[in-house]
Amino acid sequence: MTPNDRVSASSSSKAILHGSTLEKVAILGTGLIGGSVGLALKAARPGLQVIGLDTQPASAEAAVARGAIDHAARSVEEAATGADLVLLCMPVDLIPETLGELGMAAHGGAIVSDVGSAKTTIVMEGERLLGPLFVGGHPMTGSERHGIEAADAALFRDAHWVLTPTPLTASESYAAVASFVTMLGARPVALDPSSHDALVARLSHLPQLAASAIVELAAGAGDRAALLGLAGPGFRDVTRIAASDPDLWVAIIKANTKAVVDSLTILEVRLKDLGEAIAAGRWNELKDFLGAARAARLELFAKPEFGGLPVALSMMVPDRPGVLAEVTTAATKLGANIEDIRIVHSTEGGRGRLELVVAGEDRAEQLVEDLLGLGYHVDRRIE
Amino acid sequence: MTPNDRVSASSSSKAILHGSTLEKVAILGTGLIGGSVGLALKAARPGLQVIGLDTQPASAEAAVARGAIDHAARSVEEAATGADLVLLCMPVDLIPETLGELGMAAHGGAIVSDVGSAKTTIVMEGERLLGPLFVGGHPMTGSERHGIEAADAALFRDAHWVLTPTPLTASESYAAVASFVTMLGARPVALDPSSHDALVARLSHLPQLAASAIVELAAGAGDRAALLGLAGPGFRDVTRIAASDPDLWVAIIKANTKAVVDSLTILEVRLKDLGEAIAAGRWNELKDFLGAARAARLELFAKPEFGGLPVALSMMVPDRPGVLAEVTTAATKLGANIEDIRIVHSTEGGRGRLELVVAGEDRAEQLVEDLLGLGYHVDRRIE
Repeated sequence: MTPNDRVSASSSSKAILHGSTLEKVAILGTGLIGGSVGLALKAARPGLQVIGLDTQPASAEAAVARGAIDHAARSVEEAATGADLVLLCMPVDLIPETLGELGMAAHGGAIVSDVGSAKTTIVMEGERLLGPLFVGGHPMTGSERHGIEAADAALFRDAHWVLTPTPLTASESYAAVASFVTMLGARPVALDPSSHDALVARLSHLPQLAASAIVELAAGAGDRAALLGLAGPGFRDVTRIAASDPDLWVAIIKANTKAVVDSLTILEVRLKDLGEAIAAGRWNELKDFLGAARAARLELFAKPEFGGLPVALSMMVPDRPGVLAEVTTAATKLGANIEDIRIVHSTEGGRGRLELVVAGEDRAEQLVEDLLGLGYHVDRRIE
Repeated sequence: MTPNDRVSASSSSKAILHGSTLEKVAILGTGLIGGSVGLALKAARPGLQVIGLDTQPASAEAAVARGAIDHAARSVEEAATGADLVLLCMPVDLIPETLGELGMAAHGGAIVSDVGSAKTTIVMEGERLLGPLFVGGHPMTGSERHGIEAADAALFRDAHWVLTPTPLTASESYAAVASFVTMLGARPVALDPSSHDALVARLSHLPQLAASAIVELAAGAGDRAALLGLAGPGFRDVTRIAASDPDLWVAIIKANTKAVVDSLTILEVRLKDLGEAIAAGRWNELKDFLGAARAARLELFAKPEFGGLPVALSMMVPDRPGVLAEVTTAATKLGANIEDIRIVHSTEGGRGRLELVVAGEDRAEQLVEDLLGLGYHVDRRIE
């Protein structure tokens, strides 16, 4: 398949700009995430048709019983046929193979997204097989539970859902998936795939490995029996995630190998430096380190960075690939959450109108400037 | 001062075997820990006289106002005069200097203990200055708060309170301090000073440094604004303690330098190995590591290791230093919590009776065997 063979989203996709126009959604993988998506969908739009598929038939049956899906399909092809949107919710290591099956099956122009925890490889594969119809995604839910039994319609409420548009992503595909996750109660955030992977390595994968290593080290201490009684609330907090499922985590780390190895190296060097500072009694250096980390930790969770009054922006954009990724990732870099987005195709040749709503007056102002720097002129601004 | 100059606990201490015989307690340092000790003491024994001292007079006054102490002394000497027990609750880096002042002042034979987070250096200094009257201690409360305002009579309820007897520790001193912390609602656990320090390095000091390093690493990621919105509950847990007070932590780590540096080195090497395993795709190795850490984490907090029905043991012991440390640390090694302990001096020359209550039938059984191996014959056992 060459780029020219790729399906053109603007010609063949069903141009689903908002969730309200969706008629049929296929969920592949009906575990915690897929099941929760189904429950949230049915809660938001009871009339929507939701088809599910799972490699474990019992899981799909349980999803039907819980009302998360209407019907359990028996194959990827059956599930995807006639779907407006196909969401891949299986474990991250199984996504590339399912994309392959979809590439064969999905001739109907369905938009395809996924929930895999690492994006570079999956997006590359998704675009190779599905072109501008594929939009990578990753809901930041962080639940330790799994399986359809734990599915919850409220799982995504106010959670960030990263989408990873690239220059190839069709505006319509992005807008449809952004609208879809908003319908689930989540807040779409655009990041390029490699920034996403580096971020989740530092925010999730590295902490997981460090927590496990800290448990291993503690458990290896001589006075095992004493240890059992003496671990306090701090240790409990730091190591809570070490109780996570090893198989799941091997798959997650495997999918993000490069970024994880990079972050491990940085942490390892940092610990070595810290050990040297402590051994040499450089207490001011230790204090500065602890003080900066404290300030960063407080800042990290104290401020509602994504928030503020909604501001609507509107601009004419050229009808070419890459526009969407440029605009949305520019917003994310500013910490400006895109609350709503829609693409209106103009009758003027080769141009369209992009309308978006961002939260926060100041960030909207800055975004307008940054977009000007990228060559976009925001010609209308509605309060 | 030579060992022969040391005050002999069995001759000059007030032989306080149980908290009920205490008449006057001095608390040096009336912050969170000292204030909470005072409140717990006054709740347990309203008639007990509690004298406090703080380098910040306002803190001692607030302790009086809260009813944590009866009276604020103006000097270490004034506070210690006539006290049965002196408890050092100031920041860990100020303890050695206060021990020096006490060494000059405490001629009344008061038993002295402390709450410092590292024990090797403090115990060495305490024994040099106070001989068998000193018993190192460390309550495992793990509160992030500080100051008399945060003091709480329930702070130590069911918390473990490590005591670090050595061969020099007088049985009476140990029994008095163990009884005292039991009166506060805590559970005394005996560990030798260096085992304690290695354990807290792994359970507390290393996790603190790792959490701060993980925050630093995350905060240094490019997409800062995105980061702020995407850190999930796992990251929040792992890094919660990074918001702790830098000054406090510099003092804590300074007091436990060797053990902290040792544990940093072990973690650093482990992360390097993990990075190599991941880069090389050795997934089974990663899975085994995560699986073992998971099992250890679940074991760590699932079982009430210190618990079970109380079993009383009684044995004749030679009246020589070291007996108490041997017996109590043997119990800790088994995970057998000593619920109660008392020393009864026999009329037979050079022998005494040690009575202790441990939790759990099986551990009591094993302890009897281990003590036999150490040359102690448990000749009476009361259910």
